[in-house]
Amino acid sequence: LTRRYVAYAPGRFATDAKTAHGVIAYGDEAVVAVVDPACAGHSVRDVLVHLRSDAPIVASLRDALQYAPTALLIGTAPRGGALPPAWRADVLDAIAAGLDIVSGLHDFIGDDVEFRAAAQAAGTAIWDVRKPPATPIFSGRAYAVGAPILLTVGNDCAVGKMTASLEFVRAAKRAGKPDACFVPTGQTGIAIAGWGIAIDRVVADFAAGAAETLVLQAAERGGDPIVVEGQGAINHPAYGPVTLALMYGSTPDALIAVCDPRRARIEEYDVATLGYAELIDAHESLLAPVKRAGVVGIALNTRGLSPAEAREEIARARSETGLPCDDLVRFGADDFYRAVAPRVRKNRPAAAAR
Amino acid sequence: LTRRYVAYAPGRFATDAKTAHGVIAYGDEAVVAVVDPACAGHSVRDVLVHLRSDAPIVASLRDALQYAPTALLIGTAPRGGALPPAWRADVLDAIAAGLDIVSGLHDFIGDDVEFRAAAQAAGTAIWDVRKPPATPIFSGRAYAVGAPILLTVGNDCAVGKMTASLEFVRAAKRAGKPDACFVPTGQTGIAIAGWGIAIDRVVADFAAGAAETLVLQAAERGGDPIVVEGQGAINHPAYGPVTLALMYGSTPDALIAVCDPRRARIEEYDVATLGYAELIDAHESLLAPVKRAGVVGIALNTRGLSPAEAREEIARARSETGLPCDDLVRFGADDFYRAVAPRVRKNRPAAAAR
Repeated sequence: LTRRYVAYAPGRFATDAKTAHGVIAYGDEAVVAVVDPACAGHSVRDVLVHLRSDAPIVASLRDALQYAPTALLIGTAPRGGALPPAWRADVLDAIAAGLDIVSGLHDFIGDDVEFRAAAQAAGTAIWDVRKPPATPIFSGRAYAVGAPILLTVGNDCAVGKMTASLEFVRAAKRAGKPDACFVPTGQTGIAIAGWGIAIDRVVADFAAGAAETLVLQAAERGGDPIVVEGQGAINHPAYGPVTLALMYGSTPDALIAVCDPRRARIEEYDVATLGYAELIDAHESLLAPVKRAGVVGIALNTRGLSPAEAREEIARARSETGLPCDDLVRFGADDFYRAVAPRVRKNRPAAAAR
Repeated sequence: LTRRYVAYAPGRFATDAKTAHGVIAYGDEAVVAVVDPACAGHSVRDVLVHLRSDAPIVASLRDALQYAPTALLIGTAPRGGALPPAWRADVLDAIAAGLDIVSGLHDFIGDDVEFRAAAQAAGTAIWDVRKPPATPIFSGRAYAVGAPILLTVGNDCAVGKMTASLEFVRAAKRAGKPDACFVPTGQTGIAIAGWGIAIDRVVADFAAGAAETLVLQAAERGGDPIVVEGQGAINHPAYGPVTLALMYGSTPDALIAVCDPRRARIEEYDVATLGYAELIDAHESLLAPVKRAGVVGIALNTRGLSPAEAREEIARARSETGLPCDDLVRFGADDFYRAVAPRVRKNRPAAAAR
């Protein structure tokens, strides 16, 4: 049962459609068209070459239907996560056309009386990927997982933690770790992988427990290594708590720091991002009393830098931190994986959890 | 419209009924009886002298009705926050007897079809104090609040952060700060003060924003100083994210560290609690990049120590930290307030929030 998606991102595809981009780049299911009047007439590749897709961008949902989609993917995650009112009519038209709705918004499509009634009438499904299941309080059971657990952290939101996690898992598989497992913790990762929990949507008391639940599920799937997608940033004034829930709840043995070196300030806040040394220290010192885990590598996002600038920044990060460092998208993840893997050792907590 | 509460804590009043204890000690509304067969026949004062209440403890809800209560207060907060199934019949009987239900459980009484139908039939109200309102993402608007903002933090859950906050506010009022404002962030504080948001019940992405909302509400009420009740502990593997949401979201100018010196490990987890110096450093270094705030005093909970041991521990904390230090319940909060107040200065963020 494979979906054929139309990715919906009016006015935002080129700039602000993380979920659409992620599913196009990494999803197993096809994105057959994109709706965005601002880029209509071009292909995805014309607008964003790194997505390597020839899917057409069209002006309207009606135009997209000729590509025989089976599902509408709400392709953006606006701040606060509400559905822009102007999009309602298209969502209803998509349902009426028989499309399933896949949404990563905080506001659940399936909780909307009108959408739910329409979907029931049309016999289509609504998948709110951010809707979390009930999960228990963090218990410490994940301390007993045998496979090494890695967690990506970063210097801000939207710097490439999911992408680095996915590329690292692909490299692990190429390097003889067929059970390497990506653990999705956000709406885009969930839409890509088809499972996971959006930790940012879990009630705060249960957020670490939800992260632990995911690690236990990855262990049940035989994941080895288990690579947990990070969220937010530890010094992000709004989303830092989500980052901390992943740090404590996923019980990592090692961290990979994902950094956009051009990001001087946390997006939308006047808070300076942390430099490499500060970032490493902040995470390691917070984790030390709970479950010790060190940063074992730096995955740089050098988009916007020239190749020479990128290599210079990578060299600077290597020399400042003494750690393996690379841009996993631009220069490939294999060298990085080979350099990082020997640094990852199963790191039991000092004392077993009760 | 003042409630007359029967506090409901079967088998747990003496040990594990934080909400009942808080409302008895600090609430404006009377607790006229307590239901707990394990202590029946005694008064509250017999069991817990520090609560200074002569309310009777009775064996059953039926026995409590002779004291003409108008509301049932679910007086405990079991781990995970679900209603023990054995309590259902009593809740239904209380509703049938015309009592309102006030509950701090994670599982909302008002969301239960049977309870809701019963309350509608009986014309009684259900107040789920932990049910959070919709609040926006943290915006930084609280950076502009003019009154000084204090936040209590601590070396574990349930060490007395709420109590220290309430005693500090009372001392501030006695010292000529009539607008000193306690900001409730948990179920017991909300039941005591009649407003607030249970931060632990807010979706993780919005938890810092909920803390900010409370500070803005306190500012609208003219609060000066604004004293925010802390939650959890920064190194608590399950609840640390809630602590961080309060640290970032309440935009504090100063912190008061509340510590139980006998607590060697985080309750229910094999994680060591932090010593005074570590605790101060962990909070100050985390806050430094977001909004600088220092620890300005240590409020010790010396329950279980002899008076001599208590004074010795207070002296040790003073000498280790160089900060004002006292047990605000045991020795009064006035000296502590006078020592701390001059150390609290409005501390603007380095740069204004966008």
